[in-house]
Amino acid sequence: MFGLLSQLAHVELGSPCPEESATFFTDVFGLYETERDGESVYLRGWGDHFHHSLVVTEAAAPQVLHVGWRAAGEEALGSAAAALEGAGAGEGWREPVRGHGRAYRFRTPGGIAHEVFWEVDRYEADEAGRSTLPIRVQRFAPVGVAARQIDHVTFVTPKIMEDVGLFRDALGSRFMEYAMAPDGEEVAFAEVSSNEQAHDIAFVGVPQAPPGLSHHFAFWLDSPAEVHRAADILRESGNPVEWGPARHGHGENTFLYVREPGGHRVEVFSGGYRNYQPDWEPRKWSADQGGVEMFVNNPMPASLFEAFPPDPAPPADRAAAGVAAAS
Amino acid sequence: MFGLLSQLAHVELGSPCPEESATFFTDVFGLYETERDGESVYLRGWGDHFHHSLVVTEAAAPQVLHVGWRAAGEEALGSAAAALEGAGAGEGWREPVRGHGRAYRFRTPGGIAHEVFWEVDRYEADEAGRSTLPIRVQRFAPVGVAARQIDHVTFVTPKIMEDVGLFRDALGSRFMEYAMAPDGEEVAFAEVSSNEQAHDIAFVGVPQAPPGLSHHFAFWLDSPAEVHRAADILRESGNPVEWGPARHGHGENTFLYVREPGGHRVEVFSGGYRNYQPDWEPRKWSADQGGVEMFVNNPMPASLFEAFPPDPAPPADRAAAGVAAAS
Amino acid sequence: MFGLLSQLAHVELGSPCPEESATFFTDVFGLYETERDGESVYLRGWGDHFHHSLVVTEAAAPQVLHVGWRAAGEEALGSAAAALEGAGAGEGWREPVRGHGRAYRFRTPGGIAHEVFWEVDRYEADEAGRSTLPIRVQRFAPVGVAARQIDHVTFVTPKIMEDVGLFRDALGSRFMEYAMAPDGEEVAFAEVSSNEQAHDIAFVGVPQAPPGLSHHFAFWLDSPAEVHRAADILRESGNPVEWGPARHGHGENTFLYVREPGGHRVEVFSGGYRNYQPDWEPRKWSADQGGVEMFVNNPMPASLFEAFPPDPAPPADRAAAGVAAAS
Amino acid sequence: MFGLLSQLAHVELGSPCPEESATFFTDVFGLYETERDGESVYLRGWGDHFHHSLVVTEAAAPQVLHVGWRAAGEEALGSAAAALEGAGAGEGWREPVRGHGRAYRFRTPGGIAHEVFWEVDRYEADEAGRSTLPIRVQRFAPVGVAARQIDHVTFVTPKIMEDVGLFRDALGSRFMEYAMAPDGEEVAFAEVSSNEQAHDIAFVGVPQAPPGLSHHFAFWLDSPAEVHRAADILRESGNPVEWGPARHGHGENTFLYVREPGGHRVEVFSGGYRNYQPDWEPRKWSADQGGVEMFVNNPMPASLFEAFPPDPAPPADRAAAGVAAAS
Repeated sequence: MFGLLSQLAHVELGSPCPEESATFFTDVFGLYETERDGESVYLRGWGDHFHHSLVVTEAAAPQVLHVGWRAAGEEALGSAAAALEGAGAGEGWREPVRGHGRAYRFRTPGGIAHEVFWEVDRYEADEAGRSTLPIRVQRFAPVGVAARQIDHVTFVTPKIMEDVGLFRDALGSRFMEYAMAPDGEEVAFAEVSSNEQAHDIAFVGVPQAPPGLSHHFAFWLDSPAEVHRAADILRESGNPVEWGPARHGHGENTFLYVREPGGHRVEVFSGGYRNYQPDWEPRKWSADQGGVEMFVNNPMPASLFEAFPPDPAPPADRAAAGVAAAS
Repeated sequence: MFGLLSQLAHVELGSPCPEESATFFTDVFGLYETERDGESVYLRGWGDHFHHSLVVTEAAAPQVLHVGWRAAGEEALGSAAAALEGAGAGEGWREPVRGHGRAYRFRTPGGIAHEVFWEVDRYEADEAGRSTLPIRVQRFAPVGVAARQIDHVTFVTPKIMEDVGLFRDALGSRFMEYAMAPDGEEVAFAEVSSNEQAHDIAFVGVPQAPPGLSHHFAFWLDSPAEVHRAADILRESGNPVEWGPARHGHGENTFLYVREPGGHRVEVFSGGYRNYQPDWEPRKWSADQGGVEMFVNNPMPASLFEAFPPDPAPPADRAAAGVAAAS
Repeated sequence: MFGLLSQLAHVELGSPCPEESATFFTDVFGLYETERDGESVYLRGWGDHFHHSLVVTEAAAPQVLHVGWRAAGEEALGSAAAALEGAGAGEGWREPVRGHGRAYRFRTPGGIAHEVFWEVDRYEADEAGRSTLPIRVQRFAPVGVAARQIDHVTFVTPKIMEDVGLFRDALGSRFMEYAMAPDGEEVAFAEVSSNEQAHDIAFVGVPQAPPGLSHHFAFWLDSPAEVHRAADILRESGNPVEWGPARHGHGENTFLYVREPGGHRVEVFSGGYRNYQPDWEPRKWSADQGGVEMFVNNPMPASLFEAFPPDPAPPADRAAAGVAAAS
Repeated sequence: MFGLLSQLAHVELGSPCPEESATFFTDVFGLYETERDGESVYLRGWGDHFHHSLVVTEAAAPQVLHVGWRAAGEEALGSAAAALEGAGAGEGWREPVRGHGRAYRFRTPGGIAHEVFWEVDRYEADEAGRSTLPIRVQRFAPVGVAARQIDHVTFVTPKIMEDVGLFRDALGSRFMEYAMAPDGEEVAFAEVSSNEQAHDIAFVGVPQAPPGLSHHFAFWLDSPAEVHRAADILRESGNPVEWGPARHGHGENTFLYVREPGGHRVEVFSGGYRNYQPDWEPRKWSADQGGVEMFVNNPMPASLFEAFPPDPAPPADRAAAGVAAAS
């Protein structure tokens, strides 16, 4: 925990086919449904402690509708709200909703809606769901990929260094790593973290991109071996892996990407370094050093350039800029 | 990072045979020697960012001579010193030494010397030792166990809840888990953490123990699979595993213990949960729930009751109390 | 494939509670039911190619009722029958039954019934169960432990070297490894193999044992990491691990043991060496070298001495002899 | 062991820089030098039982100079020689050489020289190199990748089905899997096996290829996790991974490819199915099913089309045909 946020708490995914999306997340990804209301299904991994870590809501196109963060405390919540307002990103307080208390809403320079709150509802397993280990929130009875807990979110943004700056300067997150575009003049990718790993939020810089685009969100598994196992399960379930399993140089994490039925990209994630330096200087990668793919021989497929909501006709130069991020 | 400490930085190990100990740590454990002076050898894992994470110093018997922590910042260092002094644990400021700046020294109720500092010397690899990844402090060219970085320390203490209280109340670390003795009235084991895992410091409660006893310190590997690999390397190198490889319920970590040539116990460690809740309530284990050994069928060997410096004739009831911690 | 057998094909398990046993094997172990008749349930792992690899049949006490082997060919089947008859172990031909063609029945010196056959029914998945990989007999859609295929069987025998001799001399299997009792005069454990690993059949020597006792049978997982994962699943499902996960010196395999609801012991197994020498000389282990437990610090629990059908009052000296096998 | 061969015993690699090649194999791959003579260095993995599994010999260009197989026995050696001679592939007997007894030499339709022998010199470790486990030929004291033992060889051939036929019909190996070229009319890849896995020899079919081209040879590690670890070691040692780590559909094996200093391709290999059916029908893959890359999103790099000795100017249509094998 570095700064005013203690952790990424949830993502709200808009899906054009919310039932199919929810079924994928429970039956293949192995999440659990906490409850549902008319519009939304509330889900969590077997190791997520809160009421939900994923909300699936009906929407015209796949996209992340908002991100929920838990503050580092009641006082930190107030400080965060003041800093966000001071930075011109604030959108005011929201009343308590299902799963958490009052929240301060803000919007990143790249156009994504976020909320930060402190009071949170914790999941409590019923008798049948209780673990034999007192430290676990729920029994480990894996279904499919059996994602343990939410890990991070990634967005496409026209203002990458402003997004980084908001999380670093207003919220105290650490700016850990960044990659330059092939021409070497623009930051094409940046990782920001409120925890010991390389990121809980990342940004893909595409100067021509419209605001409000999401790229993927990720769930955590306990070991790289489980990511490889997940790849097999996904392929056999009829959900082909989009990219991976492989290893990022960034963060040293093992990963794979897959599309959920609504079309959004989801990452399965594990491994990675543990770094505890509050005064860490962000490390710079050049485009050919393997940040995106550590072994530099597993090129990112073109489909990875798609962001959400999808643009039926992206300008040619935006696609080209996107290529920069991936090289 | 929870509280005023950012991380465990180093352990000073006293050894009756410092040359043999240092050779074990470099040739079998895979640490690297940064430098040495007349009395001490300074070592670090390939992933440790600071000048050293282990100092081996000549001593009459094996024991941990002191523990070094890095504060969460310059201001946090001042706050820590004030809080420790207020708690009656302070022993004053020390001048800068090899590897770090001025430090505030304190002693736990259980009798262990610690220091906390902010300014620290970072290791810089020479050309040959530099990694191909800009985020790594050093090339990964594994030798033996190839321990990545220091992880935690564990002490035997006659005043377990006072030790826990000092780290929790004065330093802001989180009290994560504890286990009761079989009779159910005393805390036999407690884990305290300044990071996302279950502990960076733990205590074995033995009411009759003399002050100043260490139990083990641990180094981290990137995955449970590597701990199992380490067990094979250790056995084949003539350093039999004392206990493990197995898995703790506490923290869900995979572990093994081995003795270094001076006789002190060292743990090889990986896996474990990631928990980011600042308001986490410590979880209680009863003696039969598998905290020490998750699958409750791999009993802790009697040799694990030994603490350091070793007591040639421990009172019978102290040994019995020690058993409590392990059941 | 060394000798006249190509592989272990199935085990028939007698259970006092066949419904509960079958449910454990499907819901927790992750086997699939091929079909059932009045007395028996036919099961197989997702990677087993034949009609079944496990039959669960009602019986007064848990025990292995018979073992099925597939011959190396039609001609090898005839040679095997002749050799078994010549060795005085033959019990004649049996008519084809569910899952395979005519079989030659024999009984080991230790009193266990076996059958060997060549013609076999292969499992064919229906459309929904078909894999996306043309080499797999069935889709990988893991449930629980998700055991892949049958691996080996182990018996307690009063005539260990006669049992070894029958498989080695009549059937051409390789005698790979053996362990001496602590007193050094008797063979306490022996591994025999028709494949590249250390065994597909093993024997625990207990001179005073009655004939016909089984010890365990084992299913295979693809990697040691999956055995560790299985341990967690088993514990959380209310089926505590009897011993393990750990690693045998014998064969270098990673293992765990668990009891199915009828009381019989089942092993989950992976890893191990690959040895292709037809003229391999069996390797001898002394009782203190770690054959049973590679790291010699995870002693076999007393419950591992139980064999099946269980003896309510085993002679004291038999239990003592059993200890020899485990030291 | 299926047929007249018990195992792949060694490969002779011609290298234009044999010293550099040998140093790579010992210092990075972790093989051990048994001995050397004026022209050749004899090497083996820590788990290889014979005198050598790799010979490095000076040559003008990188290529496999010959392959050594061990017969299934003395009688099988005679049968193999007779069958090879009958098939028109025989080149007569050769006198005993360093490491093995007299050998029968043959040449595949694709132009590769092979030898088969029965008598073999076994490696015996000296006192310092002896394992603590009586089943191991040598202590496990890993250096670099720490390859355990030789696994398989792969050749480019203009006559793929004739090569398959020779091993299947004359030597009794099993034809396990094959992949069709994208046009669907030619076999582009075939795996043949004398053991339980998918292959110990494979062929890439390129109708226009000259005879005598090798593609790669492979060494085995104990688990997929170790292949991923090897990738990191190789990158950091300045030997970039050519392709992988990833997973083949063929055989379900985890792999990576790297070039040794002489330019030849070497594979690091683990995992994979275990199949014991003597009457296995070869399985057919279409070009789009993921045989070469199970998750169909990690395309084979163009450099993988290079075979040895390298052709400075391959005809365009041959490169195109090569593409077929990899799609």
